[in-house]
Amino acid sequence: MTAALTVADIAARVGGSVEGDPDRPISGLAAAENAGPGDLTMVVDEAWARRLGDISAAAALVPLDLALSMPQVSLVRVENPRLALAVVAPLFVPEEMPEPGVSPTADVHLDAVLGERVSVGPCAVVGPGAVIGDDTHIGALTFVGGGATIGRSCRIDPSCTVGGRVRMGDRVHLFSGARLGTDGFGYTPGPSGLVKVPQIGRCIIGDDVEIGANTTVDRGALGDTVIGAGTKIDNLVLIAHNTHIGPNCIIVGQAGTAGSVRLGEGVQLGGQVGIADHVSIGDGTRIVGQSGVFRDKPAGGTYFGSPALPQREALRAISGFRRLHELLKRIKALETAVFGKGE
Amino acid sequence: MTAALTVADIAARVGGSVEGDPDRPISGLAAAENAGPGDLTMVVDEAWARRLGDISAAAALVPLDLALSMPQVSLVRVENPRLALAVVAPLFVPEEMPEPGVSPTADVHLDAVLGERVSVGPCAVVGPGAVIGDDTHIGALTFVGGGATIGRSCRIDPSCTVGGRVRMGDRVHLFSGARLGTDGFGYTPGPSGLVKVPQIGRCIIGDDVEIGANTTVDRGALGDTVIGAGTKIDNLVLIAHNTHIGPNCIIVGQAGTAGSVRLGEGVQLGGQVGIADHVSIGDGTRIVGQSGVFRDKPAGGTYFGSPALPQREALRAISGFRRLHELLKRIKALETAVFGKGE
Amino acid sequence: MTAALTVADIAARVGGSVEGDPDRPISGLAAAENAGPGDLTMVVDEAWARRLGDISAAAALVPLDLALSMPQVSLVRVENPRLALAVVAPLFVPEEMPEPGVSPTADVHLDAVLGERVSVGPCAVVGPGAVIGDDTHIGALTFVGGGATIGRSCRIDPSCTVGGRVRMGDRVHLFSGARLGTDGFGYTPGPSGLVKVPQIGRCIIGDDVEIGANTTVDRGALGDTVIGAGTKIDNLVLIAHNTHIGPNCIIVGQAGTAGSVRLGEGVQLGGQVGIADHVSIGDGTRIVGQSGVFRDKPAGGTYFGSPALPQREALRAISGFRRLHELLKRIKALETAVFGKGE
Repeated sequence: MTAALTVADIAARVGGSVEGDPDRPISGLAAAENAGPGDLTMVVDEAWARRLGDISAAAALVPLDLALSMPQVSLVRVENPRLALAVVAPLFVPEEMPEPGVSPTADVHLDAVLGERVSVGPCAVVGPGAVIGDDTHIGALTFVGGGATIGRSCRIDPSCTVGGRVRMGDRVHLFSGARLGTDGFGYTPGPSGLVKVPQIGRCIIGDDVEIGANTTVDRGALGDTVIGAGTKIDNLVLIAHNTHIGPNCIIVGQAGTAGSVRLGEGVQLGGQVGIADHVSIGDGTRIVGQSGVFRDKPAGGTYFGSPALPQREALRAISGFRRLHELLKRIKALETAVFGKGE
Repeated sequence: MTAALTVADIAARVGGSVEGDPDRPISGLAAAENAGPGDLTMVVDEAWARRLGDISAAAALVPLDLALSMPQVSLVRVENPRLALAVVAPLFVPEEMPEPGVSPTADVHLDAVLGERVSVGPCAVVGPGAVIGDDTHIGALTFVGGGATIGRSCRIDPSCTVGGRVRMGDRVHLFSGARLGTDGFGYTPGPSGLVKVPQIGRCIIGDDVEIGANTTVDRGALGDTVIGAGTKIDNLVLIAHNTHIGPNCIIVGQAGTAGSVRLGEGVQLGGQVGIADHVSIGDGTRIVGQSGVFRDKPAGGTYFGSPALPQREALRAISGFRRLHELLKRIKALETAVFGKGE
Repeated sequence: MTAALTVADIAARVGGSVEGDPDRPISGLAAAENAGPGDLTMVVDEAWARRLGDISAAAALVPLDLALSMPQVSLVRVENPRLALAVVAPLFVPEEMPEPGVSPTADVHLDAVLGERVSVGPCAVVGPGAVIGDDTHIGALTFVGGGATIGRSCRIDPSCTVGGRVRMGDRVHLFSGARLGTDGFGYTPGPSGLVKVPQIGRCIIGDDVEIGANTTVDRGALGDTVIGAGTKIDNLVLIAHNTHIGPNCIIVGQAGTAGSVRLGEGVQLGGQVGIADHVSIGDGTRIVGQSGVFRDKPAGGTYFGSPALPQREALRAISGFRRLHELLKRIKALETAVFGKGE
């Protein structure tokens, strides 16, 4: 915790300008509705501001152009309050990283290779030939399979699984219960029931990827499953075998990609979206929550529905769908007028 | 196991009345289709009764007004057979709670505070400053982060994660693989890729909450995520950061709430329902399975579809949807009649 | 790794015929796009072949009738390339099974019964009275509850949960994070809030079942939950209490079955499908991804949509849905012609 930061200090750190008293001391961060007279908070848009009544925060990070009447709060105007908050948060809430070293209750194989300043938590298990980069933390109760490689400055939270064929870059963050490098789901009819198609490929995770709690990322069947650098994946997502995800994608919770899906750069999948096998989605395309995509989509669009349509078409069709009962009545009236007593 | 209970004893325990032989001995509980001549079972409605042929149970808990012709079975008539079963089940299947004490293979930090009669299972990990209330059980292989607080008489099943910023009430039950207090999913564009928005809030779980297997409940970003007392959450549900759920809600499996959702008291979400971010749902409202809710809903309604409509409207629209092919033909016939050879 | 296999050797193993050089040596398996001059790959259909440019593989398993012009690649023609790959894969990628024995960091209760050649991984926990069949592997950090029975030659991957009331057949494979035999989700209104309905049944898993990562299979309430022999279940699937699944079903990721669902033999559920409680689905029926099934379906059909329709009807209705905006205009034009200035 820092001794004494003022509103002006905060503004200097984030390149913002102050409206109101620049000398108020700031000792913590809090949501606007909970903030007390020593707290910094943020307000990101008008809807957010409307939901708040009077707030007791000392100061708020706000966008350059947001009209606000909170005379009692010092405003720090910045281009992107969320980004500014990310800059100042470590001043108040230092990230807790465990001390380097291997817990006495961890089970690390003698043939595992640990870099400098690696920490391995209680009851974690690391298999033979696993390679773990400098400054990486392996959480309690996590399993790292024999032969896996994990880069530098990664943070693997408690109770994850990193399969032996995982190749992980640097600064990757896995949340509890994430399962990486598990076998894909592939069967073929055999002489006496279903036979498993070999699942022997790798699972390649780029730098700066984050993978949410209880999310699963299968290894490739013959080829690889690939998650591009900077991509962020939420909780309970399913990434099937041989999926290739480009860099800087955002995949929201409970979405799923079937086998051999291709996502370009900066693709966004909303919550509970499903992408059918072998479908490709172009750079920057957004799929709205709960949509189902059964065919390729070009770059730069926005799609909605199951099957997904261009958003504008989808909204028009949905509007018609809501009026179907009325349309039916209008058709009946026309039929009566044109044909006499209809139906 | 109890030595000798009769049908009359059961009826007395649950305030029910007996039809048939009150003296038959009952030694166990079983589903109607598996029940033998010493078993008590239940039949809750007509559909249930129709699915059964002759049954061999000694007795059945049945509703006051259900017409049944099972002369060989003693009936115990009660208002709510499920509730009656909950009352008598402990007589036959005592809940197995482990002996108090810390397993020798658990790793409990010296600075954790354990109440009276706490049990900690094998290979469980409890961090510094965690506080665990009297009579609580921490299952094998579960992780309790430093600083977490868990109330009295809680039951944390094997392989759960309780993050350091969790504040849990009394009599909470977590099922295997539940992840509480993990970071929320929030990113903002930065100068070189996505930057994580700080996720530093708490995760507050009320008394008597149950949280299903492999469900995830993220901590708040700046504020808190809150689950109201008595709320029951099924498996594989996603509760995102800053969601506030009222008391006595029922959230069925694979449903998900995006960030900052508000659910009132007694709200019911069906399986695979999705609620978009910042949406509020009023007290007692029910959302039917697989629906997607993108806008606020008032109290007391029932909604269906994606986007969700009032159930009655949704059913009418769906009925029209199924007739769209026919409507198209009727429009063509009208066009031919009115305009001559149409299209 | 095998010293020296030729294309002809591969063909002999799988009963295939060679087109091209039968004497090229094969030293590994790879996806077509990654394969080098010593690798065997497979190409299963025309679409797959089209996606490939020139490939460098030594040989490819291909269907009998697939037209291919890859003169530099030796072709091994077989009926089902995936099945052939399953036959030859162990020659190149031997399945890694751990040595028999109990890890020193595992916690196996003295009253557990372990068969011949059982292996128990690091930090695994096995409760009293559990019975584990010959040649079965219990992965690291997995929990097997007191009283559970697991058959022969099963493979339980790291970090699974096998509840005490699980009865598992032979050759079952559980992937990381699978939760079997957890309590079902059943509550009934009581005098002061929701009361849990007893969940005391069993969870019965047939021979040769595979259950994916982070999937949950609840125990029965009074009766049993049953998964038929040979059924394959993908990741993040929810199987609720008292579901009965027939043999040789395929259940794709993130699908869910509510309580007391019945699936016949060889039923296929696509990804993210939901089946409402008490619904029965006949033998061999297929439900397309993201569909929702609220009513019983007969054997042998294919269904799509939410609520699900026969696929042909669903596709017709969806085609009408996309034209709703146009239909509305056509109705307006008719109204103007018939009634004068419409609406």
